[in-house]
Amino acid sequence: MNFHVMTLFPEMMETVLSTSILGRAEKRGCLGFTVTNIRDFAGNRHGKVDDYPYGGGAGILIQPAPVVDCFRAVSEKVGHPCRCIYTSPQGKTFTQEDAWELSREEDLIFLCGHYEGIDERALDICVTDTYSVGDYVLTGGELPVLTMIDAIARLVPEVLHNEDSNLFDSFTDHLLEYPQYTRPEVYEGRAVPEVLLSGHHAKIEEWRRKQSLERTFAKRPDLLKEAAKAGELTRRDLLYLSEIGWWPDEEETS
Amino acid sequence: MNFHVMTLFPEMMETVLSTSILGRAEKRGCLGFTVTNIRDFAGNRHGKVDDYPYGGGAGILIQPAPVVDCFRAVSEKVGHPCRCIYTSPQGKTFTQEDAWELSREEDLIFLCGHYEGIDERALDICVTDTYSVGDYVLTGGELPVLTMIDAIARLVPEVLHNEDSNLFDSFTDHLLEYPQYTRPEVYEGRAVPEVLLSGHHAKIEEWRRKQSLERTFAKRPDLLKEAAKAGELTRRDLLYLSEIGWWPDEEETS
Repeated sequence: MNFHVMTLFPEMMETVLSTSILGRAEKRGCLGFTVTNIRDFAGNRHGKVDDYPYGGGAGILIQPAPVVDCFRAVSEKVGHPCRCIYTSPQGKTFTQEDAWELSREEDLIFLCGHYEGIDERALDICVTDTYSVGDYVLTGGELPVLTMIDAIARLVPEVLHNEDSNLFDSFTDHLLEYPQYTRPEVYEGRAVPEVLLSGHHAKIEEWRRKQSLERTFAKRPDLLKEAAKAGELTRRDLLYLSEIGWWPDEEETS
Repeated sequence: MNFHVMTLFPEMMETVLSTSILGRAEKRGCLGFTVTNIRDFAGNRHGKVDDYPYGGGAGILIQPAPVVDCFRAVSEKVGHPCRCIYTSPQGKTFTQEDAWELSREEDLIFLCGHYEGIDERALDICVTDTYSVGDYVLTGGELPVLTMIDAIARLVPEVLHNEDSNLFDSFTDHLLEYPQYTRPEVYEGRAVPEVLLSGHHAKIEEWRRKQSLERTFAKRPDLLKEAAKAGELTRRDLLYLSEIGWWPDEEETS
């Protein structure tokens, strides 16, 4: 799968994309990244791509032509129509389900806004999908785009090694992770829970499942509702949840 | 305000933190960043900080000692007690209100998890606050930590210049941004809305406000409810919203 990023900060994007799991996956050929500097399409030798907004107000905006010209150059290299994603608080809230859906694309183009914002006409021409990564305000689109790429790329087959694992895989089944322990057995007087040292796999699984249920109940009860709706809770789960005080609404079990 | 980051990928963090608005604010002395490599506290010459989880299962975990030793070294440099933030799907959902609250701290320590996860005892010892930046799974904690730092840092006084502006400031009043336009006046047959060229400030403000209301109604009606609850909608706003088909629930206006 190939990710094509249009940005005013190519060095920053390249550094992050070449680090860690994503960088290793690119070296192995599972992922491809291209980063294109919008400023290369400034059309003037000063590389100026922004100007004041019509109608006044604070801030400056990226002009339409550099963005659209950059987009057309990237699209031509891609060689077939593909989605172009912009991140903005205006967008649909990005979730794990979106990450799965987008991970089935062959190519994706991402447009990073920056603090100034982008002329609306360029967005109209280029962008097919707008996502918001969360209800907070950032200085630009680079971090949200990297966040989306990270979430999508790790779902592409063969990107994650077994050791990279899916430890962070809350949300695949709506339950939060159980606590994890590694050596030493006792650290500053704090011992690893005994069951984990027992070698008794069924008991370990049961303990972990209960920990997941307890944590999700305590921290994100909204996710328990989702799990119930999606039919992911077993009768044993429901029994344990009722013991600790949670019971699904009638509408969700029907 | 000072941000202290503990990570296994210091180069990546430093590159992002030295770029753009955050990097310029650091040079001007409004922000301070320190990045500490957890691997420097491995306690062995191979720099190995991870091991298999007790109880089996995929993945490897960061051991407690390197994290706790790193945390204590960073805390000592800070010189006074301060909050230590970890990002995880387990956490409280991070919002703009949290960003405002955290921006009043003098120092913040951030612990970046990575794909392996971290031994639970280290989290118990070090972490005071756990946040989730969104309901999606990432390969590690670096991007969520950078996202939080970006959202918090831009609220620190004097970090944003006037030209950096608050164009992306949806969520300060729960309404999405109106569209923005810059030169040229006509681009590929698409003209800037006439009102923006009129020089009539009251009309421009009215047009922009209506655009914000329309977009928020179309894309994030949940935010309109919040705005109504917070008393941010004027009588004129409510009149316009009723014309385009939105009306607050009784509970929200009472």
